[in-house]
Amino acid sequence: MSELKEITELLVKFRNERDWKQFHNSKDLALAISIEASELNELFLWKSNEDVDKNRLKEELADILSFAFLLAEKHELDISSIIKDKIKLNGEKYPIERSKGSAKKYNEL
Amino acid sequence: MSELKEITELLVKFRNERDWKQFHNSKDLALAISIEASELNELFLWKSNEDVDKNRLKEELADILSFAFLLAEKHELDISSIIKDKIKLNGEKYPIERSKGSAKKYNEL
Amino acid sequence: MSELKEITELLVKFRNERDWKQFHNSKDLALAISIEASELNELFLWKSNEDVDKNRLKEELADILSFAFLLAEKHELDISSIIKDKIKLNGEKYPIERSKGSAKKYNEL
Amino acid sequence: MSELKEITELLVKFRNERDWKQFHNSKDLALAISIEASELNELFLWKSNEDVDKNRLKEELADILSFAFLLAEKHELDISSIIKDKIKLNGEKYPIERSKGSAKKYNEL
Repeated sequence: MSELKEITELLVKFRNERDWKQFHNSKDLALAISIEASELNELFLWKSNEDVDKNRLKEELADILSFAFLLAEKHELDISSIIKDKIKLNGEKYPIERSKGSAKKYNEL
Repeated sequence: MSELKEITELLVKFRNERDWKQFHNSKDLALAISIEASELNELFLWKSNEDVDKNRLKEELADILSFAFLLAEKHELDISSIIKDKIKLNGEKYPIERSKGSAKKYNEL
Repeated sequence: MSELKEITELLVKFRNERDWKQFHNSKDLALAISIEASELNELFLWKSNEDVDKNRLKEELADILSFAFLLAEKHELDISSIIKDKIKLNGEKYPIERSKGSAKKYNEL
Repeated sequence: MSELKEITELLVKFRNERDWKQFHNSKDLALAISIEASELNELFLWKSNEDVDKNRLKEELADILSFAFLLAEKHELDISSIIKDKIKLNGEKYPIERSKGSAKKYNEL
Protein backbone atom coordinates (compact mmCIF):
# COMPACT_ATOMS: atom_id res chain seq x y z
CA MET A 1 0.00 0.00 0.00
CA SER A 2 1.20 3.52 -0.69
CA GLU A 3 2.38 5.69 2.19
CA LEU A 4 -0.35 8.27 1.67
CA LYS A 5 -3.03 5.62 1.51
CA GLU A 6 -1.70 4.05 4.70
CA ILE A 7 -1.75 7.33 6.63
CA THR A 8 -5.21 8.16 5.36
CA GLU A 9 -6.48 4.77 6.50
CA LEU A 10 -5.06 5.33 9.98
CA LEU A 11 -6.81 8.71 10.16
CA VAL A 12 -10.09 7.24 8.96
CA LYS A 13 -9.82 4.39 11.46
CA PHE A 14 -9.22 6.86 14.30
CA ARG A 15 -12.24 8.90 13.18
CA ASN A 16 -14.53 5.89 12.78
CA GLU A 17 -13.63 4.37 16.14
CA ARG A 18 -14.91 7.61 17.69
CA ASP A 19 -17.94 7.89 15.42
CA TRP A 20 -16.81 11.34 14.31
CA LYS A 21 -17.73 11.09 10.62
CA GLN A 22 -21.04 12.75 11.46
CA PHE A 23 -19.18 15.96 12.41
CA HIS A 24 -16.75 15.95 9.49
CA ASN A 25 -18.64 17.89 6.85
CA SER A 26 -16.48 19.70 4.29
CA LYS A 27 -17.01 23.20 5.68
CA ASP A 28 -16.02 22.20 9.21
CA LEU A 29 -13.03 20.19 8.01
CA ALA A 30 -11.83 23.29 6.16
CA LEU A 31 -12.43 25.32 9.32
CA ALA A 32 -10.46 22.78 11.35
CA ILE A 33 -7.49 23.11 8.98
CA SER A 34 -7.59 26.86 9.44
CA ILE A 35 -7.79 26.64 13.23
CA GLU A 36 -4.84 24.24 13.36
CA ALA A 37 -2.90 26.54 11.01
CA SER A 38 -3.51 29.39 13.44
CA GLU A 39 -2.21 27.28 16.31
CA LEU A 40 0.94 26.72 14.27
CA ASN A 41 1.20 30.47 13.69
CA GLU A 42 0.75 31.18 17.37
CA LEU A 43 4.07 29.41 18.02
CA PHE A 44 5.74 32.27 16.11
CA LEU A 45 3.72 35.19 17.50
CA TRP A 46 5.90 38.07 18.78
CA LYS A 47 8.95 35.99 17.85
CA SER A 48 11.62 35.99 15.18
CA ASN A 49 11.35 33.79 12.11
CA GLU A 50 13.09 30.65 13.38
CA ASP A 51 12.39 30.94 17.11
CA VAL A 52 10.06 28.01 17.50
CA ASP A 53 9.51 25.00 19.75
CA LYS A 54 10.22 22.20 17.27
CA ASN A 55 8.16 19.67 19.17
CA ARG A 56 5.06 21.82 19.08
CA LEU A 57 5.72 22.65 15.43
CA LYS A 58 5.66 18.91 14.68
CA GLU A 59 2.34 18.49 16.43
CA GLU A 60 0.60 21.46 14.85
CA LEU A 61 1.89 20.54 11.40
CA ALA A 62 0.58 17.00 11.91
CA ASP A 63 -2.85 18.37 12.89
CA ILE A 64 -3.04 20.52 9.76
CA LEU A 65 -1.99 17.61 7.55
CA SER A 66 -4.42 15.22 9.24
CA PHE A 67 -7.47 17.39 8.58
CA ALA A 68 -6.23 18.13 5.04
CA PHE A 69 -5.87 14.39 4.37
CA LEU A 70 -9.36 13.75 5.75
CA LEU A 71 -10.86 16.45 3.55
CA ALA A 72 -9.05 14.98 0.54
CA GLU A 73 -10.35 11.52 1.45
CA LYS A 74 -13.89 12.84 1.76
CA HIS A 75 -13.69 14.18 -1.79
CA GLU A 76 -11.80 11.13 -3.09
CA LEU A 77 -8.84 13.27 -4.06
CA ASP A 78 -5.44 11.75 -4.57
CA ILE A 79 -3.01 13.95 -2.63
CA SER A 80 -0.08 13.21 -4.88
CA SER A 81 -2.08 14.10 -8.00
CA ILE A 82 -3.61 17.34 -6.74
CA ILE A 83 -0.20 18.65 -5.66
CA LYS A 84 1.36 17.71 -9.00
CA ASP A 85 -1.52 19.39 -10.85
CA LYS A 86 -1.08 22.52 -8.74
CA ILE A 87 2.67 22.62 -9.35
CA LYS A 88 1.91 22.59 -13.08
CA LEU A 89 -0.64 25.38 -12.73
CA ASN A 90 1.74 27.42 -10.58
CA GLY A 91 4.39 26.97 -13.23
CA GLU A 92 2.12 28.89 -15.59
CA LYS A 93 1.28 31.57 -13.02
CA TYR A 94 4.90 31.95 -12.01
CA PRO A 95 7.14 31.49 -15.09
CA ILE A 96 10.77 31.15 -13.95
CA GLU A 97 12.07 34.12 -15.91
CA ARG A 98 9.52 36.52 -14.39
CA SER A 99 9.31 35.23 -10.85
CA LYS A 100 12.93 34.33 -10.12
CA GLY A 101 14.07 35.98 -6.92
CA SER A 102 10.79 37.84 -6.52
CA ALA A 103 8.26 37.40 -3.71
CA LYS A 104 5.54 39.17 -5.66
CA LYS A 105 2.15 37.58 -6.20
CA TYR A 106 1.45 36.41 -9.76
CA ASN A 107 -1.01 39.22 -10.41
CA GLU A 108 1.63 41.79 -9.47
CA LEU A 109 4.55 40.31 -11.44
CA MET B 1 11.53 6.61 -3.88
CA SER B 2 8.58 7.08 -1.56
CA GLU B 3 5.56 9.10 -2.75
CA LEU B 4 5.99 11.75 -0.06
CA LYS B 5 9.67 12.11 -0.84
CA GLU B 6 8.89 12.44 -4.54
CA ILE B 7 6.29 15.20 -4.01
CA THR B 8 8.59 17.05 -1.64
CA GLU B 9 11.38 16.94 -4.21
CA LEU B 10 9.07 18.40 -6.87
CA LEU B 11 8.12 21.22 -4.51
CA VAL B 12 11.74 21.92 -3.61
CA LYS B 13 12.72 21.91 -7.30
CA PHE B 14 9.94 24.41 -8.10
CA ARG B 15 11.10 26.63 -5.24
CA ASN B 16 14.78 26.43 -6.14
CA GLU B 17 14.22 27.18 -9.82
CA ARG B 18 12.66 30.47 -8.71
CA ASP B 19 15.24 31.18 -6.03
CA TRP B 20 12.52 31.42 -3.41
CA LYS B 21 14.30 29.64 -0.55
CA GLN B 22 15.40 33.07 0.70
CA PHE B 23 11.74 33.97 1.44
CA HIS B 24 10.77 30.63 2.97
CA ASN B 25 11.59 31.18 6.63
CA SER B 26 9.55 29.10 9.09
CA LYS B 27 7.32 31.93 10.28
CA ASP B 28 6.31 32.95 6.77
CA LEU B 29 5.77 29.35 5.67
CA ALA B 30 3.41 28.94 8.62
CA LEU B 31 1.70 32.18 7.62
CA ALA B 32 1.38 30.94 4.04
CA ILE B 33 -0.35 27.75 5.24
CA SER B 34 -2.79 29.88 7.20
CA ILE B 35 -3.51 32.18 4.25
CA GLU B 36 -4.13 29.23 1.93
CA ALA B 37 -6.37 27.66 4.58
CA SER B 38 -8.41 30.86 4.62
CA GLU B 39 -8.75 30.76 0.85
CA LEU B 40 -10.12 27.25 1.22
CA ASN B 41 -12.56 28.50 3.85
CA GLU B 42 -13.66 31.33 1.62
CA LEU B 43 -15.08 28.75 -0.80
CA PHE B 44 -17.61 27.88 1.92
CA LEU B 45 -18.40 31.39 3.16
CA TRP B 46 -22.16 32.13 3.36
CA LYS B 47 -22.78 28.61 2.01
CA SER B 48 -23.99 25.31 3.31
CA ASN B 49 -21.59 22.57 4.37
CA GLU B 50 -21.15 20.74 1.07
CA ASP B 51 -21.82 23.58 -1.39
CA VAL B 52 -18.34 23.93 -2.83
CA ASP B 53 -16.62 24.22 -6.20
CA LYS B 54 -14.68 20.95 -6.21
CA ASN B 55 -12.06 22.21 -8.62
CA ARG B 56 -11.18 25.16 -6.44
CA LEU B 57 -11.24 22.93 -3.36
CA LYS B 58 -8.59 20.76 -5.03
CA GLU B 59 -6.39 23.75 -5.74
CA GLU B 60 -6.64 25.32 -2.29
CA LEU B 61 -6.06 21.98 -0.59
CA ALA B 62 -2.99 21.45 -2.78
CA ASP B 63 -1.67 24.89 -1.78
CA ILE B 64 -2.08 24.16 1.93
CA LEU B 65 -0.39 20.77 1.57
CA SER B 66 2.46 22.22 -0.51
CA PHE B 67 3.43 24.80 2.09
CA ALA B 68 2.98 22.23 4.87
CA PHE B 69 5.30 19.82 3.04
CA LEU B 70 7.87 22.60 2.52
CA LEU B 71 7.79 23.51 6.22
CA ALA B 72 8.23 19.84 7.12
CA GLU B 73 11.13 19.59 4.67
CA LYS B 74 12.76 22.69 6.18
CA HIS B 75 12.69 21.03 9.61
CA GLU B 76 13.63 17.59 8.26
CA LEU B 77 10.40 16.12 9.51
CA ASP B 78 9.05 12.90 8.06
CA ILE B 79 5.38 13.54 7.29
CA SER B 80 4.33 9.98 7.77
CA SER B 81 6.03 9.78 11.18
CA ILE B 82 4.71 13.06 12.58
CA ILE B 83 1.14 12.14 11.67
CA LYS B 84 1.49 8.68 13.20
CA ASP B 85 2.98 10.22 16.36
CA LYS B 86 0.10 12.67 16.56
CA ILE B 87 -2.51 9.94 16.08
CA LYS B 88 -0.96 8.17 19.06
CA LEU B 89 -1.01 11.34 21.15
CA ASN B 90 -4.60 12.08 20.14
CA GLY B 91 -5.54 8.56 21.18
CA GLU B 92 -4.50 9.49 24.71
CA LYS B 93 -6.30 12.85 24.61
CA TYR B 94 -9.42 11.31 23.13
CA PRO B 95 -9.92 7.79 24.56
CA ILE B 96 -12.60 5.99 22.55
CA GLU B 97 -14.93 5.39 25.47
CA ARG B 98 -15.04 9.06 26.47
CA SER B 99 -15.00 10.71 23.06
CA LYS B 100 -17.22 8.42 21.03
CA GLY B 101 -19.94 10.38 19.29
CA SER B 102 -18.88 13.62 20.98
CA ALA B 103 -17.50 16.72 19.26
CA LYS B 104 -16.18 18.13 22.54
CA LYS B 105 -12.59 19.24 22.87
CA TYR B 106 -10.38 16.99 25.01
CA ASN B 107 -10.24 19.51 27.86
CA GLU B 108 -14.04 19.56 28.02
CA LEU B 109 -14.68 15.83 27.85
CA MET C 1 -25.55 59.29 18.87
CA SER C 2 -22.32 57.59 19.84
CA GLU C 3 -19.63 56.99 17.22
CA LEU C 4 -19.79 53.22 17.55
CA LYS C 5 -23.56 53.24 17.28
CA GLU C 6 -23.35 55.43 14.20
CA ILE C 7 -20.86 53.15 12.41
CA THR C 8 -22.88 50.08 13.31
CA GLU C 9 -26.00 51.68 11.88
CA LEU C 10 -24.19 52.44 8.62
CA LEU C 11 -23.07 48.81 8.38
CA VAL C 12 -26.55 47.50 9.13
CA LYS C 13 -28.05 49.85 6.53
CA PHE C 14 -25.56 48.63 3.90
CA ARG C 15 -26.41 45.02 4.76
CA ASN C 16 -30.17 45.56 4.75
CA GLU C 17 -30.19 47.42 1.44
CA ARG C 18 -28.66 44.28 -0.10
CA ASP C 19 -30.87 41.87 1.81
CA TRP C 20 -27.81 40.13 3.21
CA LYS C 21 -29.06 39.51 6.75
CA GLN C 22 -30.14 36.04 5.62
CA PHE C 23 -26.47 35.09 5.06
CA HIS C 24 -25.11 36.66 8.25
CA ASN C 25 -25.42 33.82 10.72
CA SER C 26 -22.93 33.92 13.61
CA LYS C 27 -20.70 31.11 12.33
CA ASP C 28 -20.27 32.69 8.89
CA LEU C 29 -19.70 36.15 10.35
CA ALA C 30 -16.91 34.67 12.47
CA LEU C 31 -15.55 32.96 9.36
CA ALA C 32 -15.69 36.25 7.45
CA ILE C 33 -13.64 37.98 10.17
CA SER C 34 -11.04 35.24 9.88
CA ILE C 35 -10.89 35.44 6.08
CA GLU C 36 -10.46 39.23 6.18
CA ALA C 37 -7.77 38.82 8.85
CA SER C 38 -5.92 36.47 6.50
CA GLU C 39 -6.13 39.02 3.71
CA LEU C 40 -4.54 41.52 6.07
CA ASN C 41 -1.81 39.00 6.86
CA GLU C 42 -1.20 38.34 3.19
CA LEU C 43 -0.02 41.95 2.85
CA PHE C 44 2.93 40.99 5.08
CA LEU C 45 3.69 37.56 3.59
CA TRP C 46 7.41 37.07 2.72
CA LYS C 47 8.00 40.64 3.91
CA SER C 48 9.57 42.39 6.86
CA ASN C 49 7.50 43.63 9.77
CA GLU C 50 6.68 47.14 8.58
CA ASP C 51 6.84 46.63 4.80
CA VAL C 52 3.17 47.13 4.00
CA ASP C 53 0.95 49.01 1.56
CA LYS C 54 -0.78 51.38 3.96
CA ASN C 55 -3.78 51.85 1.72
CA ARG C 56 -4.49 48.15 1.55
CA LEU C 57 -3.87 47.82 5.30
CA LYS C 58 -6.60 50.42 5.85
CA GLU C 59 -9.04 48.49 3.71
CA GLU C 60 -8.38 45.08 5.22
CA LEU C 61 -8.53 46.47 8.74
CA ALA C 62 -11.86 48.12 7.90
CA ASP C 63 -13.20 44.79 6.60
CA ILE C 64 -12.21 42.97 9.79
CA LEU C 65 -13.75 45.67 11.96
CA SER C 66 -16.94 45.77 9.90
CA PHE C 67 -17.67 42.05 10.31
CA ALA C 68 -16.68 42.22 13.98
CA PHE C 69 -19.12 45.12 14.52
CA LEU C 70 -21.87 43.21 12.71
CA LEU C 71 -21.30 40.12 14.85
CA ALA C 72 -21.41 42.29 17.98
CA GLU C 73 -24.63 43.90 16.75
CA LYS C 74 -26.18 40.48 16.09
CA HIS C 75 -25.53 39.51 19.71
CA GLU C 76 -26.45 42.95 21.07
CA LEU C 77 -22.99 43.43 22.49
CA ASP C 78 -21.69 46.87 23.32
CA ILE C 79 -18.23 47.09 21.80
CA SER C 80 -16.92 49.54 24.30
CA SER C 81 -18.07 47.38 27.23
CA ILE C 82 -16.77 44.06 25.95
CA ILE C 83 -13.31 45.54 25.35
CA LYS C 84 -13.25 47.15 28.78
CA ASP C 85 -14.34 43.85 30.37
CA LYS C 86 -11.59 42.01 28.48
CA ILE C 87 -8.94 44.53 29.53
CA LYS C 88 -9.94 43.85 33.13
CA LEU C 89 -9.76 40.09 32.61
CA ASN C 90 -6.40 40.38 30.86
CA GLY C 91 -5.14 42.43 33.78
CA GLU C 92 -5.69 39.36 35.96
CA LYS C 93 -4.12 36.98 33.43
CA TYR C 94 -1.16 39.29 32.86
CA PRO C 95 -0.27 41.03 36.16
CA ILE C 96 2.19 43.85 35.43
CA GLU C 97 4.95 42.54 37.67
CA ARG C 98 5.00 39.11 35.97
CA SER C 99 4.38 40.08 32.37
CA LYS C 100 6.38 43.28 32.04
CA GLY C 101 8.72 43.07 29.06
CA SER C 102 7.75 39.45 28.38
CA ALA C 103 5.96 38.13 25.28
CA LYS C 104 5.05 34.87 26.99
CA LYS C 105 1.49 33.63 27.05
CA TYR C 106 -0.24 33.80 30.42
CA ASN C 107 -0.11 30.04 30.92
CA GLU C 108 3.66 30.09 30.43
CA LEU C 109 4.46 33.07 32.66
CA MET D 1 -13.23 62.40 24.38
CA SER D 2 -14.71 60.12 21.75
CA GLU D 3 -15.57 56.53 22.66
CA LEU D 4 -13.10 55.07 20.19
CA LYS D 5 -10.33 57.32 21.40
CA GLU D 6 -11.09 56.37 24.99
CA ILE D 7 -10.94 52.62 24.29
CA THR D 8 -7.74 53.02 22.30
CA GLU D 9 -6.15 54.91 25.17
CA LEU D 10 -7.07 52.14 27.61
CA LEU D 11 -5.49 49.56 25.30
CA VAL D 12 -2.34 51.64 24.86
CA LYS D 13 -2.10 52.14 28.62
CA PHE D 14 -2.40 48.40 29.21
CA ARG D 15 0.29 47.74 26.60
CA ASN D 16 2.65 50.40 27.94
CA GLU D 17 2.35 49.31 31.56
CA ARG D 18 3.67 45.92 30.42
CA ASP D 19 6.32 47.34 28.09
CA TRP D 20 4.84 45.40 25.18
CA LYS D 21 5.22 48.04 22.49
CA GLN D 22 8.53 46.41 21.53
CA PHE D 23 6.65 43.27 20.42
CA HIS D 24 3.82 45.06 18.61
CA ASN D 25 5.21 45.41 15.10
CA SER D 26 2.61 45.59 12.34
CA LYS D 27 3.14 42.06 11.02
CA ASP D 28 2.72 40.47 14.44
CA LEU D 29 -0.30 42.61 15.30
CA ALA D 30 -1.91 41.40 12.06
CA LEU D 31 -0.97 37.84 13.02
CA ALA D 32 -2.48 38.33 16.48
CA ILE D 33 -5.79 39.46 14.94
CA SER D 34 -5.82 36.32 12.82
CA ILE D 35 -5.06 34.04 15.76
CA GLU D 36 -7.82 35.60 17.85
CA ALA D 37 -10.20 35.28 14.89
CA SER D 38 -9.40 31.57 14.76
CA GLU D 39 -10.15 31.24 18.45
CA LEU D 40 -13.53 32.81 17.76
CA ASN D 41 -14.08 30.33 14.93
CA GLU D 42 -13.13 27.43 17.15
CA LEU D 43 -16.21 28.17 19.26
CA PHE D 44 -18.30 27.16 16.22
CA LEU D 45 -16.25 24.15 15.07
CA TRP D 46 -18.39 21.01 14.47
CA LYS D 47 -21.42 23.03 15.57
CA SER D 48 -24.44 24.63 13.97
CA ASN D 49 -24.51 28.30 13.07
CA GLU D 50 -25.88 29.75 16.32
CA ASP D 51 -24.66 27.14 18.81
CA VAL D 52 -22.13 29.25 20.68
CA ASP D 53 -21.10 30.09 24.22
CA LYS D 54 -22.01 33.78 24.30
CA ASN D 55 -19.56 34.58 27.05
CA ARG D 56 -16.63 33.19 25.14
CA LEU D 57 -17.85 34.89 21.95
CA LYS D 58 -17.70 38.20 23.84
CA GLU D 59 -14.15 37.57 24.93
CA GLU D 60 -12.82 36.44 21.55
CA LEU D 61 -14.55 39.32 19.79
CA ALA D 62 -12.98 41.74 22.27
CA ASP D 63 -9.54 40.24 21.61
CA ILE D 64 -9.91 40.66 17.86
CA LEU D 65 -11.12 44.24 18.25
CA SER D 66 -8.34 45.10 20.70
CA PHE D 67 -5.54 44.05 18.35
CA ALA D 68 -7.32 45.71 15.43
CA PHE D 69 -7.58 48.96 17.41
CA LEU D 70 -3.89 48.75 18.34
CA LEU D 71 -2.87 48.22 14.72
CA ALA D 72 -5.02 51.19 13.69
CA GLU D 73 -3.41 53.28 16.44
CA LYS D 74 0.06 52.28 15.29
CA HIS D 75 -0.74 53.57 11.81
CA GLU D 76 -2.63 56.62 13.09
CA LEU D 77 -5.81 55.48 11.41
CA ASP D 78 -9.17 56.78 12.53
CA ILE D 79 -11.40 53.72 12.91
CA SER D 80 -14.58 55.56 12.13
CA SER D 81 -13.12 57.05 8.93
CA ILE D 82 -11.59 53.84 7.54
CA ILE D 83 -14.87 51.97 7.99
CA LYS D 84 -16.85 54.76 6.34
CA ASP D 85 -14.36 54.86 3.45
CA LYS D 86 -14.66 51.09 3.04
CA ILE D 87 -18.46 51.20 3.08
CA LYS D 88 -18.25 53.70 0.21
CA LEU D 89 -15.83 51.49 -1.73
CA ASN D 90 -17.98 48.42 -1.10
CA GLY D 91 -20.97 50.33 -2.40
CA GLU D 92 -19.18 50.54 -5.76
CA LYS D 93 -18.10 46.88 -5.69
CA TYR D 94 -21.57 45.74 -4.65
CA PRO D 95 -24.20 47.96 -6.31
CA ILE D 96 -27.59 47.27 -4.72
CA GLU D 97 -29.33 46.24 -7.93
CA ARG D 98 -26.72 43.56 -8.73
CA SER D 99 -25.92 42.27 -5.29
CA LYS D 100 -29.33 42.27 -3.62
CA GLY D 101 -30.08 38.87 -2.13
CA SER D 102 -26.90 37.39 -3.53
CA ALA D 103 -23.95 36.04 -1.51
CA LYS D 104 -21.66 36.11 -4.53
CA LYS D 105 -18.30 37.85 -4.39
CA TYR D 106 -18.06 41.07 -6.37
CA ASN D 107 -15.87 39.50 -9.05
CA GLU D 108 -18.50 36.81 -9.64
CA LEU D 109 -21.57 39.04 -9.73
